Amino acid sequence: MLDYALLSALAAVIRTGSFERAAQQLHVTPSAVSQRVKLLEEKLGTVLVVRGTPCTGTPGGQRLCQHVEQVALLESELRHELPGIRDAGPQVTVRIAVNADSLATWFVAAMAQTQDCLFDLVIDDQEHSADWLRRGEVLAAVTSGAKPVQGCDSTPLGALRYIATASPEFVSRHFADGVHDASLARAPRLTFNTKDSLQTQWIRQAFGTDIASPTHWLPSSQSFIDAALVGLGWGMNPEMLVAEHLRNGRLIALIQDQPLDVPLFWQRSRIVSSRLGDITRAVLRTAGTLLQRP
Amino acid sequence: MLDYALLSALAAVIRTGSFERAAQQLHVTPSAVSQRVKLLEEKLGTVLVVRGTPCTGTPGGQRLCQHVEQVALLESELRHELPGIRDAGPQVTVRIAVNADSLATWFVAAMAQTQDCLFDLVIDDQEHSADWLRRGEVLAAVTSGAKPVQGCDSTPLGALRYIATASPEFVSRHFADGVHDASLARAPRLTFNTKDSLQTQWIRQAFGTDIASPTHWLPSSQSFIDAALVGLGWGMNPEMLVAEHLRNGRLIALIQDQPLDVPLFWQRSRIVSSRLGDITRAVLRTAGTLLQRP
Repeated sequence: MLDYALLSALAAVIRTGSFERAAQQLHVTPSAVSQRVKLLEEKLGTVLVVRGTPCTGTPGGQRLCQHVEQVALLESELRHELPGIRDAGPQVTVRIAVNADSLATWFVAAMAQTQDCLFDLVIDDQEHSADWLRRGEVLAAVTSGAKPVQGCDSTPLGALRYIATASPEFVSRHFADGVHDASLARAPRLTFNTKDSLQTQWIRQAFGTDIASPTHWLPSSQSFIDAALVGLGWGMNPEMLVAEHLRNGRLIALIQDQPLDVPLFWQRSRIVSSRLGDITRAVLRTAGTLLQRP
Repeated sequence: MLDYALLSALAAVIRTGSFERAAQQLHVTPSAVSQRVKLLEEKLGTVLVVRGTPCTGTPGGQRLCQHVEQVALLESELRHELPGIRDAGPQVTVRIAVNADSLATWFVAAMAQTQDCLFDLVIDDQEHSADWLRRGEVLAAVTSGAKPVQGCDSTPLGALRYIATASPEFVSRHFADGVHDASLARAPRLTFNTKDSLQTQWIRQAFGTDIASPTHWLPSSQSFIDAALVGLGWGMNPEMLVAEHLRNGRLIALIQDQPLDVPLFWQRSRIVSSRLGDITRAVLRTAGTLLQRP
């Protein structure tokens, strides 16, 4: 068996980003943490931690860190079944990849319904969040990919509905004679990051073609709305976040009755899926209430 | 001189993340873009673009991309002085590093006051945003570092005020007998990511020592507040974002009159600083209204 005292030190350094915080978490001295990580690196003959601010894992370090978390999750399952085993460790941390707009709309409500677990969320585009699962860096993911990642179960969650929105001033300035090829090609759009294709998808759905346009790059769900409100550009915003703005006219839909529905799926690693049962139930229940039915 | 047709193709691929979007932006075919990038790579004898989804720049590619943007900014300055020069290119894109909480509170209002420029924002912790400037990957940064980065001007913006907040239920559950070493060590906190030291800074300011505790990791300003509201943990939230919640009692301060003020600075590259004049004026004006005076 592997030496889990060494592995726990490694995981704590990578997850907290520093030897000091890892030491605090494990209730040992930073020099003890440093010795354990060094010993592990010597045993394996490879560097596992990139010493920096913050410290990060090498690919090998990340892989070991993920292994430690899976084992911790299996142990916590064991403790549920055999309550006689003394609960030795800290609370279990579950690492999940989630798209920013799910986090901004419904995912926190699901988190609130689970108990006895700490969340470590990584944010990535819904078309890329499954990659984290594929690489084994998370135990579960909210993703637009229906097809189960190897070793994972996939359950449909419903669709997150987006509306192409802009401020009334922006619409009068850029779309006074309508939303069409020429006006879309001139009006600045908002793009979350290079992975964000929602604006392109919406144009394709509405016009059957691609139209390039100038863009602001703005990687935050809330700032996307703020930027639309102040008239910097138009963008695809989750209906849940802009419903109130649409009602009071601070934002308007570029085209009526032309939403973009993005189906989402909950994928989780099968090996720990029973331990993730609580979270899975909370996620499915919350999504069932707040997302669009297929 | 360098070949700017090739360089523009490279920059468009790296900034948009794909050969297709770069082609749309430059009004040429994707294969023309691909040929230009390949030619540039052959000329320089090095790979400049990592072909992936999305495409990203190698360190060399990033450096060239940054150069192209500086030249574009200098050209736009020239056009202001010599209006006779035909405006040939697309709008200038200005890349800025900003901390998530500034973006969530006051930065969009500053963006709204500038004209004729597109923003490409990268989000990083205030203690790390200056690194982007140091590496030459952005032209300006909102940072907690006062000391000017080489080749940059630094101007104080005032301080962003944070309050340690949690829901009333969370406080009764975890801090019924007061906020002290033992209760802080047990109560889950919220941490943005491994670069976020605000919770630790606040504990140090209030108690003169470090106290480790279990944590959720939640890299989003708005979700930080959502998670505090639903009682997942306590966290340092910008006063501007939680003032209303504090007034109506949905959140409460862990300790009264114990804010944490984080001084911020506007640093921008001197070589393009006159072209950034508009943005600098808007940033200083907005920060002067919304941030705490030193």
